[in-house]
Formats: sequence, structure tokens, C-alpha cells
Amino acid sequence: MPEVYVHAVRGRTAEQKRALIKDITDAVVRHFGVPADAVLVEIMESDPANKAKGGVPLSERRS
Amino acid sequence: MPEVYVHAVRGRTAEQKRALIKDITDAVVRHFGVPADAVLVEIMESDPANKAKGGVPLSERRS
Amino acid sequence: MPEVYVHAVRGRTAEQKRALIKDITDAVVRHFGVPADAVLVEIMESDPANKAKGGVPLSERRS
Amino acid sequence: MPEVYVHAVRGRTAEQKRALIKDITDAVVRHFGVPADAVLVEIMESDPANKAKGGVPLSERRS
Amino acid sequence: MPEVYVHAVRGRTAEQKRALIKDITDAVVRHFGVPADAVLVEIMESDPANKAKGGVPLSERRS
Amino acid sequence: MPEVYVHAVRGRTAEQKRALIKDITDAVVRHFGVPADAVLVEIMESDPANKAKGGVPLSERRS
Repeated sequence: MPEVYVHAVRGRTAEQKRALIKDITDAVVRHFGVPADAVLVEIMESDPANKAKGGVPLSERRS
Repeated sequence: MPEVYVHAVRGRTAEQKRALIKDITDAVVRHFGVPADAVLVEIMESDPANKAKGGVPLSERRS
Repeated sequence: MPEVYVHAVRGRTAEQKRALIKDITDAVVRHFGVPADAVLVEIMESDPANKAKGGVPLSERRS
Repeated sequence: MPEVYVHAVRGRTAEQKRALIKDITDAVVRHFGVPADAVLVEIMESDPANKAKGGVPLSERRS
Repeated sequence: MPEVYVHAVRGRTAEQKRALIKDITDAVVRHFGVPADAVLVEIMESDPANKAKGGVPLSERRS
Repeated sequence: MPEVYVHAVRGRTAEQKRALIKDITDAVVRHFGVPADAVLVEIMESDPANKAKGGVPLSERRS
């Protein structure tokens, strides 16, 4: 504990995910005063057709 | 914000998911008074073997 | 099933929450073809100090 | 209701998952006094590269 | 790991919650082959006005 | 997007939570290449009687 869940659209590299996990873990250790081994981080990836902002799935948005 | 997460078993079409996302977004805008672009909706699909009601996985239920 | 979780900051009235729950339930019934009694909706309210966009808690944001 | 979500790394057999779902359902019925059909259990599986303890993804940990 | 989240309406006693936590933990140990200390269980309680089945908040349902 | 949910036991100060939110947001911006305003962080606090490791609620654990 604590447990951190990151909801993100699929498409990041293993390296990006590893770096994010590392920095989030360090932030929890630093500010909440727990040992690193107590910190759980999970990245929950979704399909762009399953996630939407403003009512439009990301798979159909143009930037 | 707000963020809406819909847990559903895999198997709906893109059209069904798009329509649900649209109507949920509209409902949040209408009743919670936020702009559409602030509303996030994510459909979290699961395998029928991983979800159960009454202790029996959906993959094994008969209707 | 399905189950719908709405994460929102505290502060809406019972009437607003009741209306949102009703419309989300109807949308799931309409688009996913399930009976209303199978649809679960939960509003998960948070303290404005516990939620942030852009790294700043809502309790400290100015509009 | 209640709804139970189990976050676990991919890799268990259908038999293991079925047995866990059954026992969790029975425990909720026994202690919370609800009928079995009201209990929902979902196992949310993740990729070992997406889950970490101590800042290191499970895909890279040695035991 | 694994992490188990139980969504339930407020109103169970500490004894009921302790017993449920114990039995869920034992079930995960037994079927998923992990040590008890690796298992996290969290009960997420909600207000009956914030949870609904069939579109009607539990605070307004008659049995 | 992304959305980050931190499950933690109640008891941290506003300052600790603000600092954690800030550093997690920065980490997501840095590694996932999104603008800060797209990042949502929510700290979901729980009662020590509702959270357990090894089958024993935190409210009853001795260190």
C-alpha cells in the first residue's frame, strides 16, 4: 500500500511504462513515507474505441 | 471530470459502445452542469470467464 | 451487469444524482440490451482536496 | 451488490479462477447476508509488464 | 498482489468486515498460490443515495 | 487522460497529498507526452478498518 492505478490508452512502449512506474513509485515513497516495496503501480490500458472525451471515442477524434 | 467507468462483458459492437458513450456523456452534462469536453467515459471490457454472478462465470451460465 | 462507476467531486444534490443515475441506467438498457434491474450505477464522490487536474487540487483552483 | 474486483496478473487457469470466484461469492453471502445472485465478482487481469511492486515491473523481477 | 476491492453499501459491522476480509484473503491464498501477506483487500463503502440498481437509489428502494 | 487513482489509508496532510499529486502529474507529462491539463489524479482514501494486508485490517495491525 498505497496502490496506484493509471488508466491510459494503449500505445506506450515498455520503456515509457517502466519509467512512469519508477517515478510514481518514487513519488509515493518520498511524500507518503512508505518503503518502495509497499507501493503497487498498475497501468490499465484501454482500446481507443473504448475511451472517450466529450462523447467521442478516441479512435474517431482528430487532433 | 467526472470520469465514468463502465464494466461490461466483451461482445458489443463499436456502434453500441459509441452510442452508450454519447448518451452517458450527455446525461452527465445535463445533470451535473459540466461541459462535454470535461466528461471522460471508459468502457472496461472483460472476458466472460473472468466475470461471475452467483458464483458462476458468465462463460458457463445458461439463460 | 454492467456496472457503472461515476467519479465526481462532492457537492451535487440528491436530485441531481438521482436524475443522472436514472439516465445512465436507461442508456445502458437502450444500447446494451439488458434489463434495467441488471444495471448497477455507483457515484463515487471525492473531496476537492483529493482530486486534481493539471497537478493542482480542485480545492485550490480558481475558475 | 456487492461487487468484488480482483486485480491479478494474467496466468491463472480457468479452474483457478472459477474456484476463487466461487469462494469469494460464498464469503460475501456468509458474512454480508446477501443472496448469491446479488454478488458480482470480476477478475481484472493485467500484463506483467504493466504491474509493478517496488517500482520494478513484474516482467523484470527475479524471485 | 493480488488486490481485491469490495464495493458495498455502508452499514456492516467491523466484525462482518473483518470476517469477510479474512475469508477473501484465505481464498486468494488457496487458489492463486500466493502468501497471505501479498494479498490486499479493501472494502469501499458507499452511501445508499449514491448506489442504484434498476435506476433507483438504494436509499429509495422498498423490498 | 490519463487518469491516476491512488488508494491510500486516511491520514496524510493536505501538503503531502498536494505534493504527491504534483509529482505524479509531472511524471505522466514527462513519460507519456501529454499536457499537464490532461492529467487527472484522484486520491481515494480509506478507513484503516476497511483495508487489510495478510487478512488483518490495518486498524488492528501492530508494526
